[in-house]
Amino acid sequence: MALRGVLRAGEVAIRVMDMKAARQHYGDRMGLHEMMTDDTGRVYYKAWDEHDHHSIVLREADSPGMDYFAFKVFDDATLTTLEQKLEAFGLQVERIEAGVYPKSGRRIQFVLPSGHTMQLYAHKEQVGNTLGLVNPGVVPDEGVIRGFRINRLDHLLLGGGHLDENVRLFTEVFDFDLGEKLVDHESGASLAVFLSCSTKPHDIAFVLQPQQNKFHHVSFLLESAHDVIKAADMIGKYRIPVDVGPNRHGVTRGATIYFFDPSGNRNEVFAEGYVHYPDTPTLVWDTRELGQATFSQDNTPRESFLTVLT
Amino acid sequence: MALRGVLRAGEVAIRVMDMKAARQHYGDRMGLHEMMTDDTGRVYYKAWDEHDHHSIVLREADSPGMDYFAFKVFDDATLTTLEQKLEAFGLQVERIEAGVYPKSGRRIQFVLPSGHTMQLYAHKEQVGNTLGLVNPGVVPDEGVIRGFRINRLDHLLLGGGHLDENVRLFTEVFDFDLGEKLVDHESGASLAVFLSCSTKPHDIAFVLQPQQNKFHHVSFLLESAHDVIKAADMIGKYRIPVDVGPNRHGVTRGATIYFFDPSGNRNEVFAEGYVHYPDTPTLVWDTRELGQATFSQDNTPRESFLTVLT
Amino acid sequence: MALRGVLRAGEVAIRVMDMKAARQHYGDRMGLHEMMTDDTGRVYYKAWDEHDHHSIVLREADSPGMDYFAFKVFDDATLTTLEQKLEAFGLQVERIEAGVYPKSGRRIQFVLPSGHTMQLYAHKEQVGNTLGLVNPGVVPDEGVIRGFRINRLDHLLLGGGHLDENVRLFTEVFDFDLGEKLVDHESGASLAVFLSCSTKPHDIAFVLQPQQNKFHHVSFLLESAHDVIKAADMIGKYRIPVDVGPNRHGVTRGATIYFFDPSGNRNEVFAEGYVHYPDTPTLVWDTRELGQATFSQDNTPRESFLTVLT
Amino acid sequence: MALRGVLRAGEVAIRVMDMKAARQHYGDRMGLHEMMTDDTGRVYYKAWDEHDHHSIVLREADSPGMDYFAFKVFDDATLTTLEQKLEAFGLQVERIEAGVYPKSGRRIQFVLPSGHTMQLYAHKEQVGNTLGLVNPGVVPDEGVIRGFRINRLDHLLLGGGHLDENVRLFTEVFDFDLGEKLVDHESGASLAVFLSCSTKPHDIAFVLQPQQNKFHHVSFLLESAHDVIKAADMIGKYRIPVDVGPNRHGVTRGATIYFFDPSGNRNEVFAEGYVHYPDTPTLVWDTRELGQATFSQDNTPRESFLTVLT
Repeated sequence: MALRGVLRAGEVAIRVMDMKAARQHYGDRMGLHEMMTDDTGRVYYKAWDEHDHHSIVLREADSPGMDYFAFKVFDDATLTTLEQKLEAFGLQVERIEAGVYPKSGRRIQFVLPSGHTMQLYAHKEQVGNTLGLVNPGVVPDEGVIRGFRINRLDHLLLGGGHLDENVRLFTEVFDFDLGEKLVDHESGASLAVFLSCSTKPHDIAFVLQPQQNKFHHVSFLLESAHDVIKAADMIGKYRIPVDVGPNRHGVTRGATIYFFDPSGNRNEVFAEGYVHYPDTPTLVWDTRELGQATFSQDNTPRESFLTVLT
Repeated sequence: MALRGVLRAGEVAIRVMDMKAARQHYGDRMGLHEMMTDDTGRVYYKAWDEHDHHSIVLREADSPGMDYFAFKVFDDATLTTLEQKLEAFGLQVERIEAGVYPKSGRRIQFVLPSGHTMQLYAHKEQVGNTLGLVNPGVVPDEGVIRGFRINRLDHLLLGGGHLDENVRLFTEVFDFDLGEKLVDHESGASLAVFLSCSTKPHDIAFVLQPQQNKFHHVSFLLESAHDVIKAADMIGKYRIPVDVGPNRHGVTRGATIYFFDPSGNRNEVFAEGYVHYPDTPTLVWDTRELGQATFSQDNTPRESFLTVLT
Repeated sequence: MALRGVLRAGEVAIRVMDMKAARQHYGDRMGLHEMMTDDTGRVYYKAWDEHDHHSIVLREADSPGMDYFAFKVFDDATLTTLEQKLEAFGLQVERIEAGVYPKSGRRIQFVLPSGHTMQLYAHKEQVGNTLGLVNPGVVPDEGVIRGFRINRLDHLLLGGGHLDENVRLFTEVFDFDLGEKLVDHESGASLAVFLSCSTKPHDIAFVLQPQQNKFHHVSFLLESAHDVIKAADMIGKYRIPVDVGPNRHGVTRGATIYFFDPSGNRNEVFAEGYVHYPDTPTLVWDTRELGQATFSQDNTPRESFLTVLT
Repeated sequence: MALRGVLRAGEVAIRVMDMKAARQHYGDRMGLHEMMTDDTGRVYYKAWDEHDHHSIVLREADSPGMDYFAFKVFDDATLTTLEQKLEAFGLQVERIEAGVYPKSGRRIQFVLPSGHTMQLYAHKEQVGNTLGLVNPGVVPDEGVIRGFRINRLDHLLLGGGHLDENVRLFTEVFDFDLGEKLVDHESGASLAVFLSCSTKPHDIAFVLQPQQNKFHHVSFLLESAHDVIKAADMIGKYRIPVDVGPNRHGVTRGATIYFFDPSGNRNEVFAEGYVHYPDTPTLVWDTRELGQATFSQDNTPRESFLTVLT
């Protein structure tokens, strides 16, 4: 009870086509901290205020997109319980031994109705946020917060089919809430669903796509809308391709800018947004207000939002 | 699992000595929305972005302080479970029928080791935040967000003895995490404890006091540190007595200003602070860094912080 | 010496096609203060922190655009001096008696090489900013700062030909500095020029246009980039057509959002930007960096910036 | 005309008692850029967005305080004119050849009625702000803006007698405006005067002191109140002694924090404040509102404000 069970998106594994360019993007420019390279060439990053060893894994590949994502759960017993619930839900669950993924305890892995590979794990090596645990103070040394001033991995948005099945899985098995959804005004069909396991307005979201297992974006939490503007300044400085923004989402009320990594994977920096609780009623947007739902400061839907995924 | 069980501080009942002055303070100046007056003369307030009917209850009395506080829990079954756990913990639990407290379902009530009366409830009438639930948009009509631009009731800090017993109760019975604590450097004794049931850095805190059942402050969430500065401007305009601030707490890393209502009850407006998770290690501060722990921008402990309570 | 001579853009007279819609836009939504209607039906507005009686004049007409603009000068002697200098420059100067324009002392009027009607005046009735002049405090009463939270009329951008003649006029006659200019990379021809008579990065600017006497936008000063985001939220709420933004200009480094009034006149809210001094070297942008010069957060030039004027 | 004549505070020469500690303070922590050391051991600093070679000069000495300050004027002819006006005012003016002060053209020097040594100069070597003058962009490379994120030297406040004589000098000789003043409510005597030669609310100020030639503080401009909070976080991190703040001044409406360098010289970081024009009426504060005038967010006058100078 309280915040228990599934805690947060803890790891996203992204395919990039040029690791050198990707390291410049995620490390030098965005300012994530490079933590290690493994013997397969994968590069691991964390945001400064995360305590766990890493949250982003880059793998060089022939096409962009996402290999898998993983949520951290409260403890090992939760993993055991969720394995049973997932199988009862009808999913095939694969067990992965501790250590197969670096710095990580055992995991379970399964495929969502939308085609995405999802993992759960309860343990990852903790390295802290540089402030220490005794009399930590509030400000890390100069240089620790850098680039886009990213605090944490925040959420991800994925594209595929069977959104309502995904919602059923996340709410029934994982106890997420459906915070918001976007529906077709005519048919009532779900076009996008936004799910929360915390007080954040969303921890994961899905958008309807003709293809399974597509990657829309990974989002990073900044401290304030002020920092979204500052990140946008650096995006402009480095000529990073911008998809949309700065703007505000109607869904979540978060301040946002969407941009692309050198391989075409969409990134977001995000701040603010309301405080969500399980007793907050689900907010429903329909296609009459697609502009407001997606980009509320100019009410202009972008075609790329629904069509450009990796 | 996910965010379940005990959700948040949902109601704080404050004694004020002059209701007219209190309404000017909490309503006209701070900008809380007055929702109703009951037949005992109590006045009920909510912050604009709360969905439930009210979160603050004022009662005119001969002395300031807090009558009780109440946390909202996920559902009625949680109430039943917690009643059993509380009794197993050794507390005497009183049942209060639905409707005894206006707009509220049934409650259970008990006294904390620190002497405070705490309640739990699962249901309160929801009135929404004026945006509606269908295509809500992001900005309420002009005048809805006013005064200090308070989004929500955030947390409370209470004074009394037996802090470690309180911690044991909140962690064992309610599954809160001990996010931070302040200890005496010599003895290691707990001087203040900060407990979270969510991703907020604290949902409730206790400070060691020679008297039981004391009220340190109730805190309201603003959108950003920017709004803390703006609230401070209005505090100055209205000559509201300031205790400390604007400043930043070392504990929670939140931006803050402490001020007093006309009866001497301490209020706070608060923003930012880190994102807490149950796997975040407990941060420990000791009395060598009492200044940094409490007011990190000038490292100056204020005597009033430990001595002025109602 | 010090800040003397020509002080600031003090009045912009805008044609609107529907006064009722215009009042809703400039008054109810943007939050300018309506000060009076004259017997020709013109409506006069001021921003809250301006001391003079009005800065915006709306006139109902068959087409949008700008009738004239006026700069305030330090004193009557400055008017006399500038009349002589303007005639020496080769312009025909018309004298307008005090009182012809409401609340205003005498004016001189002339036509710029770009075809715009410009006026100068030294006196306008002062009504203050509601704070008073003795122990004013810092925060006006609630409701005085409203809507987009506009502090002041800031600058205007006008379209026409003969930009270099305009620059010569403003620098030689009025002692403005050419703070920045945008030139064609091939020919070196001026496409836009940005002129300052203060520590603001620009007080007036001109953009090359095939037609004389065109109106690009009038810009209003907000306190911070934070308030630009908040204004953008309200622009979205009211479905006000957005041209570009929120974004940052490369020229001036100011935070911006461009939007249109109901008649199609472009407005801007603006904040930040660097501190300009006469000894700051002129910054030159060329068409290779047209995107960065205009909208530096996405480096994307907008065709409308150069083509949509009233 | 426009902004001409005396432009701004361009150089403040501060005595420090330990240069190593001073370099850590002004350079490593505040983030000013160390530009050079001369053969007398003086160390020269500039803020990132200043174009001139330096604005702060540190000299190691046995006592803290200010050696002199210098304002930059528009051109050499201004220097000549002001020399005559100063002598006509009754001051003795000393000429200092170009090159005596490093990177500087010729200067004139004189002593104010308050006992302070003031200089004027028209030329100083320009080194730019790292962005360049052609297609400069808006964001310098990472590391250029650092520490307290100071944009510029902003203003200074000096203590001494004969405030009204100082006002007469600055307004009659230099064409400054008396933007605000603080007077004794009983006697009407000037306790502090705030003078502007620009659109800033003050460029220099004087506070009544029993001793002549005292130094109250030098102030640095930050981009926003947001950055004042962030600077305060770093002040807390480095345990820099805080005098007052974060807070807001009633006078100027600026966001502020006062702190001390290791030698006890007071520094300030400052942001916001209203836009001043010569036609803005002088604002008068009296001692009944000394708290609001100085620190408007808590209305609490600090004794140190009137008594601690170097």
